Amino acid sequence: MNVAADLSALRQYLEEEGVDGYCIDDDATDSDQRYVSGFTAPDPYQTVVTDDGVHLLVSGLEYGRASAEANADSVTRLAAYDYQELAAEHGRYGAKIRALEAFLADHGVESVAVPRSFPAGTADGLRERGLAVTVEPQGIVEGIRATKTEWEIERIATTQRANEAAMAAAEGLIAEADVDDGLLVHGGEPLTSERVTEEIEVTLLRHGCGLDETIVACGADGADPHDRGSGPLRADELIVIDIFPRDKESGYFGDMTRTFARGDPGEEARRRYEVTERAFEAALETVEAGVTGADVHDAACDVIEEAGYETLRSDPSAETGFIHSTGHGVGLDIHEEPSISPAGGELEAGHVITIEPGIYDPAVGGVRIEDLVVVTEDGYENLTEYPVALEPVAH
Amino acid sequence: MNVAADLSALRQYLEEEGVDGYCIDDDATDSDQRYVSGFTAPDPYQTVVTDDGVHLLVSGLEYGRASAEANADSVTRLAAYDYQELAAEHGRYGAKIRALEAFLADHGVESVAVPRSFPAGTADGLRERGLAVTVEPQGIVEGIRATKTEWEIERIATTQRANEAAMAAAEGLIAEADVDDGLLVHGGEPLTSERVTEEIEVTLLRHGCGLDETIVACGADGADPHDRGSGPLRADELIVIDIFPRDKESGYFGDMTRTFARGDPGEEARRRYEVTERAFEAALETVEAGVTGADVHDAACDVIEEAGYETLRSDPSAETGFIHSTGHGVGLDIHEEPSISPAGGELEAGHVITIEPGIYDPAVGGVRIEDLVVVTEDGYENLTEYPVALEPVAH
Repeated sequence: MNVAADLSALRQYLEEEGVDGYCIDDDATDSDQRYVSGFTAPDPYQTVVTDDGVHLLVSGLEYGRASAEANADSVTRLAAYDYQELAAEHGRYGAKIRALEAFLADHGVESVAVPRSFPAGTADGLRERGLAVTVEPQGIVEGIRATKTEWEIERIATTQRANEAAMAAAEGLIAEADVDDGLLVHGGEPLTSERVTEEIEVTLLRHGCGLDETIVACGADGADPHDRGSGPLRADELIVIDIFPRDKESGYFGDMTRTFARGDPGEEARRRYEVTERAFEAALETVEAGVTGADVHDAACDVIEEAGYETLRSDPSAETGFIHSTGHGVGLDIHEEPSISPAGGELEAGHVITIEPGIYDPAVGGVRIEDLVVVTEDGYENLTEYPVALEPVAH
Repeated sequence: MNVAADLSALRQYLEEEGVDGYCIDDDATDSDQRYVSGFTAPDPYQTVVTDDGVHLLVSGLEYGRASAEANADSVTRLAAYDYQELAAEHGRYGAKIRALEAFLADHGVESVAVPRSFPAGTADGLRERGLAVTVEPQGIVEGIRATKTEWEIERIATTQRANEAAMAAAEGLIAEADVDDGLLVHGGEPLTSERVTEEIEVTLLRHGCGLDETIVACGADGADPHDRGSGPLRADELIVIDIFPRDKESGYFGDMTRTFARGDPGEEARRRYEVTERAFEAALETVEAGVTGADVHDAACDVIEEAGYETLRSDPSAETGFIHSTGHGVGLDIHEEPSISPAGGELEAGHVITIEPGIYDPAVGGVRIEDLVVVTEDGYENLTEYPVALEPVAH
């Protein structure tokens, strides 16, 4: 199990601002809450961080599990504040505000800082009942989360191992397919995006991971970086496979993209693959503690622009070329701090980031190559152990 | 594809309150946004509902897909408001507030109502820039969502068919297991919660559904209604299986629970099963348009209390007996309106709800039986086609 999060930067902020506590009101989809509380639940629960501890307010349904599993100094259930009676009188929302007010009072909290994502309904509801609620503007918890502990890096690496198994399963299907009239065929049926996606998902499940979305996009589909792809996969075209699974137990994500082509995708596609790979390597070589995410993004843009393709740096409204950022942090969220983009700040040792340049054009298809790395003092450690090659092989 | 949502109740609210628009700022996890926009994306995007349409503000990455797929009258990308330049100057959060402000101005919106879940950071950020932001307190969109169209009911039924296939796979494993020294054994290995969960998940995947969590809980694990279960399954003990999958394409959930026992779980466990089944039937018989969720909950509590077990109605701090609500609405969220609990209001035709009483005690184990039904004018239509029986059989 993870050790309790180091919240000293948050407590320092509370002290400087003269605020009694930091409150989160969200469900399992909020990774700040999961990180701070060491707990996750399908329904909303509330966490308050004070100078003396981390305290949770949960429903009766979650009380047993929260008491056993959470990294909290105390767990209180809603019934302690007569939630059912309050709900009968004030409705569930009114009851929640009143129970939360009483819970905060029990921990000596009359003024709270909240994350930007804190529900405006809860913020305004508490304000109406006399509490001072201010939005913490820096994203302190997101900042704390950006720098991973060894334990977290191991969790992310474990997810990336599952990711590699899934990528190998997908690549194998494409490598072993027959080609019939320009279509890939497997087991007598056209090999589709959906079939490859299913293989990826089943492989991930067998490795304890889940995922909501996978991209297996062929031809023009692959030229839209967020198109998930559909229908038959074709020979002589680029196929982008982007897999971002989440370990069900730990909640930590992995992320990897490869681009394949069966047969010959043409000289221009091969040139774009080679340019993307060089941009990928140039960005990786730039990574180390002390440089900025913007520096890393610039390194990728330099290579792509020099090869004659547009980027959002050369044309902010470009719809072809390199039309996204070079990367992002990965942890309990698939997209988190730091940003490897023009807005990206200084990298620190322990940041886990993707490096994923790409070049897109519906007329040619899409190319993207992505690894997941940990920033170190003098470079990076690559958490991805998977070859980079356009031609698919069965592993 | 779904027809655009009927937002007339929302527009009536805006007109009555003299507010220009209703704004949502969230990602795919917010079902109100998905419902209103007919779109879903992994990263946050913004929707505004005005008197003349539904308008989306999305990143460049999502622009193509949003333009093609969303039920929106217009789609604008962040770059239209120089987002990258704003982000370089003000950071990503400052840039988002400014882009959203410009987007709202373009649609003539100077005052907005927002859902309770709207981010306090965005609310306060817009307020600082002179917009009037008020929280809409009734949950109007959640209310609209509670009543399903025929199209939505078909989607939910489709998910429930996948759920039945998964339940049959799980029940089959338990029915066909050998019993060795009190443990269920399958293929020479102890049959575990994890193994049954994997079978459920793979079956759901093959049916186009995903899920984050499944409950396969044996013995004392099953007495904690939210314990997911772990380790070997034992003969002569109650095994609770609760599956709530989500169709990946439509986003609509299903929900079903069955309780099984191999061998003889004992007289008290069998009595609890029989009482739970009677409470389940009594609750179902109460369901029709015009009765309240509280009435339905009372019907289940009556049976369970008469049989001598505690409920949260007889003792709000009960930790054994019937320690949760009788049910909840199901749709794009697994838990949504209406509530089948002491706080539950009037049911309407088209509400899709679970009926799921249970009786729990660590000394005996847990029993829960759950179907998913549509409320009709004179009763209900059961969306669940799966037998209720304690003894597992291979289907």
